[in-house]
Amino acid sequence: MKAVILAAGKGERHSQGKDKSKPKPLIPLLGLSLLERAILSAKECGIYDFVIVVGYRSEEVIRYEKEKQKRLGVNIDFVENVEWEKGNGLSVLKARDALKEKEDFALLMCDHLFDSSILKELLAKAKNRKGKCVLCVDKPENVFDLEDATKILLERNKPKAIGKGIENYDAVDCGMFYCTSEMFDALEEEIGKGKYELSDAVQCSIACDKLEVFDIGGRFWRDIDTPESLEYAKRRILKSLEKPTDGIISKYINRRISKRLTARIVNTNLTPTQITIMSFIMALASAAFFFLGEHKYLIVGGILAQASSIIDGCDGEVARLKFLTTDYGAFVDSILDRYADGILIFGLIFGYWMLQGGISVWIIGLFALLGSFMISYTNARYEGVFEKPGGGRGIPIRRDMRLFIIMIGAFLNLVLVMLLLLAILTNLEVVRRVFSMKRIITKNKV
Amino acid sequence: MKAVILAAGKGERHSQGKDKSKPKPLIPLLGLSLLERAILSAKECGIYDFVIVVGYRSEEVIRYEKEKQKRLGVNIDFVENVEWEKGNGLSVLKARDALKEKEDFALLMCDHLFDSSILKELLAKAKNRKGKCVLCVDKPENVFDLEDATKILLERNKPKAIGKGIENYDAVDCGMFYCTSEMFDALEEEIGKGKYELSDAVQCSIACDKLEVFDIGGRFWRDIDTPESLEYAKRRILKSLEKPTDGIISKYINRRISKRLTARIVNTNLTPTQITIMSFIMALASAAFFFLGEHKYLIVGGILAQASSIIDGCDGEVARLKFLTTDYGAFVDSILDRYADGILIFGLIFGYWMLQGGISVWIIGLFALLGSFMISYTNARYEGVFEKPGGGRGIPIRRDMRLFIIMIGAFLNLVLVMLLLLAILTNLEVVRRVFSMKRIITKNKV
Repeated sequence: MKAVILAAGKGERHSQGKDKSKPKPLIPLLGLSLLERAILSAKECGIYDFVIVVGYRSEEVIRYEKEKQKRLGVNIDFVENVEWEKGNGLSVLKARDALKEKEDFALLMCDHLFDSSILKELLAKAKNRKGKCVLCVDKPENVFDLEDATKILLERNKPKAIGKGIENYDAVDCGMFYCTSEMFDALEEEIGKGKYELSDAVQCSIACDKLEVFDIGGRFWRDIDTPESLEYAKRRILKSLEKPTDGIISKYINRRISKRLTARIVNTNLTPTQITIMSFIMALASAAFFFLGEHKYLIVGGILAQASSIIDGCDGEVARLKFLTTDYGAFVDSILDRYADGILIFGLIFGYWMLQGGISVWIIGLFALLGSFMISYTNARYEGVFEKPGGGRGIPIRRDMRLFIIMIGAFLNLVLVMLLLLAILTNLEVVRRVFSMKRIITKNKV
Repeated sequence: MKAVILAAGKGERHSQGKDKSKPKPLIPLLGLSLLERAILSAKECGIYDFVIVVGYRSEEVIRYEKEKQKRLGVNIDFVENVEWEKGNGLSVLKARDALKEKEDFALLMCDHLFDSSILKELLAKAKNRKGKCVLCVDKPENVFDLEDATKILLERNKPKAIGKGIENYDAVDCGMFYCTSEMFDALEEEIGKGKYELSDAVQCSIACDKLEVFDIGGRFWRDIDTPESLEYAKRRILKSLEKPTDGIISKYINRRISKRLTARIVNTNLTPTQITIMSFIMALASAAFFFLGEHKYLIVGGILAQASSIIDGCDGEVARLKFLTTDYGAFVDSILDRYADGILIFGLIFGYWMLQGGISVWIIGLFALLGSFMISYTNARYEGVFEKPGGGRGIPIRRDMRLFIIMIGAFLNLVLVMLLLLAILTNLEVVRRVFSMKRIITKNKV
């Protein structure tokens, strides 16, 4: 399956913003150009071949994307439409020669952000409606800038009319299509009449009953046509980095800071793996301070531990923003986290014992170490069941909370109390999990 | 789906063995009667309703199984065939009234052991051959007592003749059938002619082209018709407790001892959970001796650690022999194993440090503890991928080996060397796994 992406327009309304020097497809949004985001979102749906129609400042766009192409990991055919000012329907038609005859394709706009699950579902559904083009639509109430939107009138779920200016409408065009080659025929017909907009061809397909609509069910999409909508999209995407499974500390402290850091990091060349390693090194540094035992060092160690916890969120965030998430990255991250946990607690035990002596810190510390580990182990043992939404109803003593307790304990110079608290909370939660697992497993069997 | 199990015969040939006082269905084999094994094997294939045809000493059989029924977790209808001596075809026919009209059923012999995957596959395949009965067959070369076996002549994979005495044959009847109600019609017809054996009705079905065969592909089954075959089956089942994933120490030492223990434990009322807890308590006792630090205590602790490791195999073995394996049992076992690992290593560190002092034992011990944990964690993190056959090609440093190294180190009074060895081997293996995981994940994606 190929995707055709329209990237020929000028993006007039962006010319007021800070990105006015850039052609629209190259406007940066959290580390990627709009065009790259469109490509990578489609790649997530299994599309690896692209036809990109360029027009306005085409050389610049082509040069920029060719540099990035290897990193994108997809094949791109650039098609130039020198008459781009006539209308976007002409740009679609220009893509015809880059496709095989009678080849279906996805049609996307470079300046439309979308949740990739929409495209995934569109592709799956469109296969069952062979021969018909399918247009993604949203409910009008979900659309920010209705005035500028292309509206659609439906009758019994079938499109009846389309246009920016129609008065009665039930839906809004999201700018994502599944097209058969008949779309080209419709375009040709309309262009022959001097109608150069894609919506003209869509109107023509509607008239011939060759178009269906697919309601995206309220999922996120956005036409990035103004500096304001760019800002909105940025906030929205950053917000989406919060996970429903985030622990309390993660939600109210770590994530708020890490999101801000991530928004800056994405503009650098730092990779998620490098960030993972930075977080690990900070945890080691924290442990080194804990080893020294004295209160002033504990404070430094505590800050470093909490900082490491925050940075530990950035690797995944950067990976998600740049479409770089891999199972392997998550695996390595989890391994380093466990080593960091162990070494941190050991540092605390040892530093305390050097100054105060006594056996109790060792025993309590051992159980804090075992308990911390067992929280992660029980979770891994059942494929993350305890950290799924709804599965984490127990004592909130995951890594975000553990490192937070360590910081507070270090600040207050209460290492023994802190270790005792960790030991009790983690092991209690493990016991709870053992019992709740019985219910979970039994339920799944019935 | 219901299963009819024939348990009416006398089992003449068993009357020489030590179980001569028992009717054949009640002959014990590793903690379960033959009839219970047949029921539980079928239950593993999703069959929960049974019609059991009893005859010889029927009251005894019914009384015994009714006592056990609740534990078996299935529904049983007992049907009595007072004329059991006439032939087993009559016993099958007696089951008719306990089934619905036109109901398909599985037909099994109480004295035939079988790998439950055979029945599972038979049920799946038979659904595609609607209307035909299917008989499981094995190749003659796999059959121990050919003389007594019911042989089958095939022609282009279709049965042509059946009988104990036929001279040309290609396959042997395993005594497992998928039957449609037409089997009853065939039985009625043959019995009307005075032919009371099941094989007579099968011959009749063959003549009408209403029977197909299913080659069990060399999997395990066995007709337990003599004390010798009972002994053989016992050895064979015990052997099957060895896992292809067993580590070196497990394979050559632990499993050999645990199998012998298990063969005795199954005749008691000890549950797998109780054995899991016993193993855990032995590990705690071992750690208590290690805490004391002196060589003589280390020796006791080392023996206890290894004993705990061996007993740790028995819980799973007993569970498998008695059809009691649950995911939950495996989960609890793994949790207790991790706690035991941690406490054992801590005992070693502490005992050594009490006598010798010094910081090195703490640091080395920490890495031994972390490494041991990480071996289990990396495995759990990827759903057992590293302990699957073929996945465990790294350093053999799983729990069996770790506890063995601990015992040897304790015997030799070389705690520091032992901990260092554990620390190096486990963490090296974790590093190897991190790199090999990259390959595994990448391969799975392509």
